Amino acid sequence: MVKLELPIIIVNFKGYKEAIGEKAVYLAKIAEEVSSETGVTIAVAPQHVDIFRITSVASLPVFAQHIDPVMPGSFTGHVIAEAVKEAGAVGTLINHSERRLILADIDGAIRKAREVGLISVVCSNNPEVSAAVAALNPDMVAVEPPELIGTGIPVSKAKTEVVTGTIDVVRKVNPDVVVLCGAGISSGDDVEAALKLGTKGVLLASGVVKAKDPRKVLLEMAEAAQRSEK
Amino acid sequence: MVKLELPIIIVNFKGYKEAIGEKAVYLAKIAEEVSSETGVTIAVAPQHVDIFRITSVASLPVFAQHIDPVMPGSFTGHVIAEAVKEAGAVGTLINHSERRLILADIDGAIRKAREVGLISVVCSNNPEVSAAVAALNPDMVAVEPPELIGTGIPVSKAKTEVVTGTIDVVRKVNPDVVVLCGAGISSGDDVEAALKLGTKGVLLASGVVKAKDPRKVLLEMAEAAQRSEK
Amino acid sequence: MVKLELPIIIVNFKGYKEAIGEKAVYLAKIAEEVSSETGVTIAVAPQHVDIFRITSVASLPVFAQHIDPVMPGSFTGHVIAEAVKEAGAVGTLINHSERRLILADIDGAIRKAREVGLISVVCSNNPEVSAAVAALNPDMVAVEPPELIGTGIPVSKAKTEVVTGTIDVVRKVNPDVVVLCGAGISSGDDVEAALKLGTKGVLLASGVVKAKDPRKVLLEMAEAAQRSEK
Amino acid sequence: MVKLELPIIIVNFKGYKEAIGEKAVYLAKIAEEVSSETGVTIAVAPQHVDIFRITSVASLPVFAQHIDPVMPGSFTGHVIAEAVKEAGAVGTLINHSERRLILADIDGAIRKAREVGLISVVCSNNPEVSAAVAALNPDMVAVEPPELIGTGIPVSKAKTEVVTGTIDVVRKVNPDVVVLCGAGISSGDDVEAALKLGTKGVLLASGVVKAKDPRKVLLEMAEAAQRSEK
Repeated sequence: MVKLELPIIIVNFKGYKEAIGEKAVYLAKIAEEVSSETGVTIAVAPQHVDIFRITSVASLPVFAQHIDPVMPGSFTGHVIAEAVKEAGAVGTLINHSERRLILADIDGAIRKAREVGLISVVCSNNPEVSAAVAALNPDMVAVEPPELIGTGIPVSKAKTEVVTGTIDVVRKVNPDVVVLCGAGISSGDDVEAALKLGTKGVLLASGVVKAKDPRKVLLEMAEAAQRSEK
Repeated sequence: MVKLELPIIIVNFKGYKEAIGEKAVYLAKIAEEVSSETGVTIAVAPQHVDIFRITSVASLPVFAQHIDPVMPGSFTGHVIAEAVKEAGAVGTLINHSERRLILADIDGAIRKAREVGLISVVCSNNPEVSAAVAALNPDMVAVEPPELIGTGIPVSKAKTEVVTGTIDVVRKVNPDVVVLCGAGISSGDDVEAALKLGTKGVLLASGVVKAKDPRKVLLEMAEAAQRSEK
Repeated sequence: MVKLELPIIIVNFKGYKEAIGEKAVYLAKIAEEVSSETGVTIAVAPQHVDIFRITSVASLPVFAQHIDPVMPGSFTGHVIAEAVKEAGAVGTLINHSERRLILADIDGAIRKAREVGLISVVCSNNPEVSAAVAALNPDMVAVEPPELIGTGIPVSKAKTEVVTGTIDVVRKVNPDVVVLCGAGISSGDDVEAALKLGTKGVLLASGVVKAKDPRKVLLEMAEAAQRSEK
Repeated sequence: MVKLELPIIIVNFKGYKEAIGEKAVYLAKIAEEVSSETGVTIAVAPQHVDIFRITSVASLPVFAQHIDPVMPGSFTGHVIAEAVKEAGAVGTLINHSERRLILADIDGAIRKAREVGLISVVCSNNPEVSAAVAALNPDMVAVEPPELIGTGIPVSKAKTEVVTGTIDVVRKVNPDVVVLCGAGISSGDDVEAALKLGTKGVLLASGVVKAKDPRKVLLEMAEAAQRSEK
């Protein structure tokens, strides 16, 4: 498994029209440059169809948005972890609020990711669910209050108790699990606040993808992460 | 929308280990050659992550295995039709027995495919469901009795009444819809039988993907299709 | 199977707090009385746990809100049609917009209802989907544009083309299927409009359940239905 | 919330034809008698439609097989916890292997059960998932390896490490959570083995429901539980 330096900024491209096909490659290139300039790890999570297209031409960690907890086989329309890995991804989101899984499948997807060598970033919606996820031994948990996703109201400022509560319970249940936070993160300040609360990074989407100047926002975020490391 | 010559052989790669990544490209290349030699349309339906990889290097119709009935937007882990199209696919399977959709979403996915210019091939499990699908105006319906999928017992011989029943009701409900059949198709004879029953092609998977010599089986199938056309 | 006189007014209790337990029995009693006074068929569709409680004390047609398309067996948390029937229900809703099913399961649930002698009322969201449903041979289809459900804006006035479009296509695909409409129906006028468009009844919920005086609204609706019959 | 004496034997009626309607009442009566004779807590989990019918005539703890994590409202075909409670149930199964929930909904259903005063018994499939469940603060977790369900091969003998592993991790994550086990339990010996491993009871189904003489098997089980308490 690839080992990523922390802190990490993961940009989820979701299904945004600004982030598919050629535009996905363009945004990934920006992320690669900003990461290179600042030394801060920046990963992208594009549509499955765009993973190979990005890994062919850009050198940055690429995550899938979802994998299914199944062995290669008769699973039409499912996402096979081995195929994701071979396409060049280094990790995968699991259980994003827009792609929830049943509990046994979160367990299965984490095991599957580990088996094929993908970093697992499991999303949760509150501290209790974060603790539950931590019990399943993922690499990272990203807590995101669904009501703030896409709002521009940053979890790291508006719901600090969700973030610190998650850090507390995850430390108790499984201290090896890295805690990220997400929802409403759209500026360097938001990232800085997230890291100050004790997280090791952020998961975000529209804050960068739908920004007027994605490069500028991402640079601002990376610089905030850089400062926090000192 | 691309216009494909009929009859058509669609090879569904599912999530088979023999048909992901480089192996997916290899199989697609075989399909391209056989199609070129015989003049029979052969399409492949690989994992989403492999669509672009195949369309970059091979010249044959590529189908997605599934699309979601949504506009580009906040849909992490969903399959955006626009992204599938930009990756070079010409069509998509919808409602495969391993990836069933709620009825309103089949309707939505067919509309979405039409909107972005993807050929829609909707799977069904019996004549009544085929008629229901035909009422939604897809390009093609592929009837596949689930109990025969992957068995090597061909629907075109073992359940001819399912195939002819489908052709009859689809003609009544919506004669513009092309009828394919699938399940257990693994030889040229099976394809010939399917076409003799009145279908315009077949949807198959393991019969080719897991064959000892996929090229040989596919060639045999294409030649059977060629004969049927005379 | 019980044969119900048309037109029919089906009051869906959903999961409303005004319509569970004792309150469900109270509302069912009102419906029974109004039906008895006017001669118009009024059915109720309560929570599963309330079916037996109602059928024990009231004499009116009771529908389940959902059944699963399975044989009795190892199906914890599923709704077994045989159990619904034995509890005294005469029919069941299938595929309500709040409880959508995959297409093959709609087919299965309709077959299951027929097998055990329950009237099947399948919900749809537009004319195309209504035609698809009609191809599956249910007893009734209830077209309900989801965007109007619970709004008080009646489909029978605001979206007449959805209702007449459904009647047209259902007649073509399967003239034996009775067409109802629903969404936003909350007055006698709305019911009258629905019947004038050619439907044989209405499916409604909040219009009665959340009315200040459910008895009065229901009486008004039944009288409108009565008038339409003349 | 009702406080139940431990150990507990929960008989899940699933959707078995031997356990619906009148037969559900009959089995519940047997359970009531055996519990009364032995002093051991025996609960039953019937189809939702049968809950009220049983609680009207029998005096024993009745569980729902599932509840939905929603407030009363527009949720056709969902199971409203408040309605389950008013029907006389004292608790509910959650996340049974035949009715899996997404993780956030398990959290929601546990909260909902607590809010309305229902005992929550959450099913899990292995120790890791049991630990995850325990982090969500249910009243009980019932670990059941899916591959043994319905086989007659008792988890308490064939997979003791799953049971003891669950007890260990649950104690660490949340010692207040009561651990039950299930799958393949069909005799007094199996129950005794389960209690000796440290569980506080069993969840079973076919072992009693499909027994030639349910009363005899249940009595044997209750006596085994009785002995274990000494």
